[in-house]
Amino acid sequence: MSERRESPVRVALLGCGTVGSEVARLLLNGADELAARVGAPVELAGIAVRRPDKHPELPQQLLTADAGELVESDVDIVVELIGGIEPVRGWLLTALRQGKSVVTGNKALLAEHGGELSEAANDSGADLYYEASVAGAIPLLRPLRESLAGDRITRVMGIVNGTTNFILSAMDSTGASYAETLEEATRLGYAEADPSADVEGYDAASKAAILASLAFHTRVTASDVYREGIVGITASDIAAAKRLNRTVKLLAICERVTDEDGTESVSARVHPVMIPRTHQLAGVGGAFNAVYVEAEAAGELMFYGQGAGGAPTASAVLGDLVAAARNRVAGGRGPRESAHAALPVRPMGQTPTRYHISLDVADRPGVLAQVAQVFAAHGVSIAAVRQRDERSTARLVVVTHLAPDAALEATVNEISKLDVVREVLSVMRVEGEDS
Amino acid sequence: MSERRESPVRVALLGCGTVGSEVARLLLNGADELAARVGAPVELAGIAVRRPDKHPELPQQLLTADAGELVESDVDIVVELIGGIEPVRGWLLTALRQGKSVVTGNKALLAEHGGELSEAANDSGADLYYEASVAGAIPLLRPLRESLAGDRITRVMGIVNGTTNFILSAMDSTGASYAETLEEATRLGYAEADPSADVEGYDAASKAAILASLAFHTRVTASDVYREGIVGITASDIAAAKRLNRTVKLLAICERVTDEDGTESVSARVHPVMIPRTHQLAGVGGAFNAVYVEAEAAGELMFYGQGAGGAPTASAVLGDLVAAARNRVAGGRGPRESAHAALPVRPMGQTPTRYHISLDVADRPGVLAQVAQVFAAHGVSIAAVRQRDERSTARLVVVTHLAPDAALEATVNEISKLDVVREVLSVMRVEGEDS
Repeated sequence: MSERRESPVRVALLGCGTVGSEVARLLLNGADELAARVGAPVELAGIAVRRPDKHPELPQQLLTADAGELVESDVDIVVELIGGIEPVRGWLLTALRQGKSVVTGNKALLAEHGGELSEAANDSGADLYYEASVAGAIPLLRPLRESLAGDRITRVMGIVNGTTNFILSAMDSTGASYAETLEEATRLGYAEADPSADVEGYDAASKAAILASLAFHTRVTASDVYREGIVGITASDIAAAKRLNRTVKLLAICERVTDEDGTESVSARVHPVMIPRTHQLAGVGGAFNAVYVEAEAAGELMFYGQGAGGAPTASAVLGDLVAAARNRVAGGRGPRESAHAALPVRPMGQTPTRYHISLDVADRPGVLAQVAQVFAAHGVSIAAVRQRDERSTARLVVVTHLAPDAALEATVNEISKLDVVREVLSVMRVEGEDS
Repeated sequence: MSERRESPVRVALLGCGTVGSEVARLLLNGADELAARVGAPVELAGIAVRRPDKHPELPQQLLTADAGELVESDVDIVVELIGGIEPVRGWLLTALRQGKSVVTGNKALLAEHGGELSEAANDSGADLYYEASVAGAIPLLRPLRESLAGDRITRVMGIVNGTTNFILSAMDSTGASYAETLEEATRLGYAEADPSADVEGYDAASKAAILASLAFHTRVTASDVYREGIVGITASDIAAAKRLNRTVKLLAICERVTDEDGTESVSARVHPVMIPRTHQLAGVGGAFNAVYVEAEAAGELMFYGQGAGGAPTASAVLGDLVAAARNRVAGGRGPRESAHAALPVRPMGQTPTRYHISLDVADRPGVLAQVAQVFAAHGVSIAAVRQRDERSTARLVVVTHLAPDAALEATVNEISKLDVVREVLSVMRVEGEDS
């Protein structure tokens, strides 16, 4: 160990909830192994918690209620696991400006202020790592940032929110309604008392912003991400997908889109998607996460693992902590982030998507012709149509080719107003090879 | 880009075959994008090939037949894609001792001399990267080395050889013999004219040595890896697996084994394995690779992608090249390897495994008792037995619990000598949850 040094790397831990307490445990109990991997002792210098008296399990002399003071004390690395924007943003900017490296799992903060934080890190030469912010334990950001640094990533698509995946998987297997399934998920602890961050797609949108920023070397914030949650998904949507041998997943999709004239842009979106049951993401059940990456030279890659939970997320935090600590010991720093490509973000309306539309229509001749006419009028070409008679009505299922999302939306609006259309049963975007 | 510098990072490329020519193409055509990512221009300083006159497609002034001279010239990074042990080993040691970073995909060399190379890199402060040596385009070594650096990896198990996976997948779907399928694979270009490195498991064993070394911080060489190829796999083995709703895969399995007294050791092995068809590795077809990683905190992770081919492997090489070049520009270096755990390697005979044994036995009472008696005598406990009558004989299928591999082997030997056993139809190790 030629790099071993005497003075320890001092770590401040902000927050000691599910993930933080696991990080504290690993730091306190695994000190020898960490020292061997880092090349110097790693010392937990302090833990900032709201109520120090509520943590009898931790060494009392390490506890403080003053996170700001701990950040400004003599530490090398700040590990932040509190979450939220303020006051955390201020503490982390202070740390980075003082040359202290930061390890965080704070997706909301990164999706909003990632640019500001990474500039502060670049200016002072500190490291800013946040593997834990997306897909929990799955090593995903480091591969995007480093392993694929010589390739051109064209697409990142995946299941990045375990709560919604649990709900959709359960709806698929039981046929129950969204409301019933959410209730069950809350009872089992898979959904929080206020589930809106998950079920309305905010959590996944933050992660999409982080993934798109890294994949395309472009600064994408949460507000750039088109977002639809799963609250509108009905048992009938799920049933419609089943009839097509498909299933519904909430996906984060980040794409590099090239226009015919060669203009490049970035699309980042979160919405429910029908995918074939044979697709590898279809088999990802319960609270697991999985992310597909497509790159020009590497082709298709998939990363799979636990997306949340104290121990899995702590593993990601510790990996970052070891990297930051090694850089301290070696006197270097990790690769900087760069937004050099600075591609424009394409609005959802102009993003090419495909729709699946399921309609209850009058059972008489000429209906398909009328419906098809509306698609044609909006320049949307149809990939497949299935028609099925049911007593006095008929069910018409249409899957489109790629078209701008706004054209598809306008088509659906106009179709819903046709006399011959009794009800629009389900409208959903489609991804995956077979159609 | 505060780190941009004027002087370029100079790269020597050794070898210009399938992967090398793709790397050359990406370096020559993607110079602007690479420069943006590295923070300085990346300049291809020379390409060493055996016959410069055979490469009219490359800039002639870059070509040389003298790899040794190119290595000693004024370059910062040496990218080696020739393969084999000598003379490559000498060139790379020279480069590293001169402080030049090395990027290589040479699994045979690393599995044999990885310790010597990484010591040379550590001594001079150069980087040694080799993501391309295992699982082609899949970012696997960097996640093992860095993302999981704060966790304890307990197991790495995967499909790391595309040729054998292609053959086994084809045998499974067609029911054809090994010889027929190998012929077809050779015709289609999936197997080389001399396929022994693949089908006898040497290639996978080198990769297992590299994976075990990184995962367990222990120096494991190819000769430490127990190795069985697929040449002995018969259509009857495949059929036996099918009857149990299983499939046969050639797996590299690296495990941390803890004895009852707490003694730790490492097991690394490559052999055919029966896995349930529901296992995620069972669905990995054709020439794809997939690797499962289990760590104490992170839980189960899976990495999937293309394991070979010019462009995918070049993506891995370029990722390493960008990392090494960034370190040059930033004046630092990447994390060093460490073999600090230095665990002993457990011989195969003492490694716990599970067997599936399929027997043709006499159709008369007391046979199962006799067979079961042999298992008991070797201390092997039985997990499941199935018996099926077929005309004058009966088929007996036994799946065991975990037992030392030597005890299982001895059990099979003794059973094959029993009067009541007409033929041992298939013996194969078993992995995966359900049994």
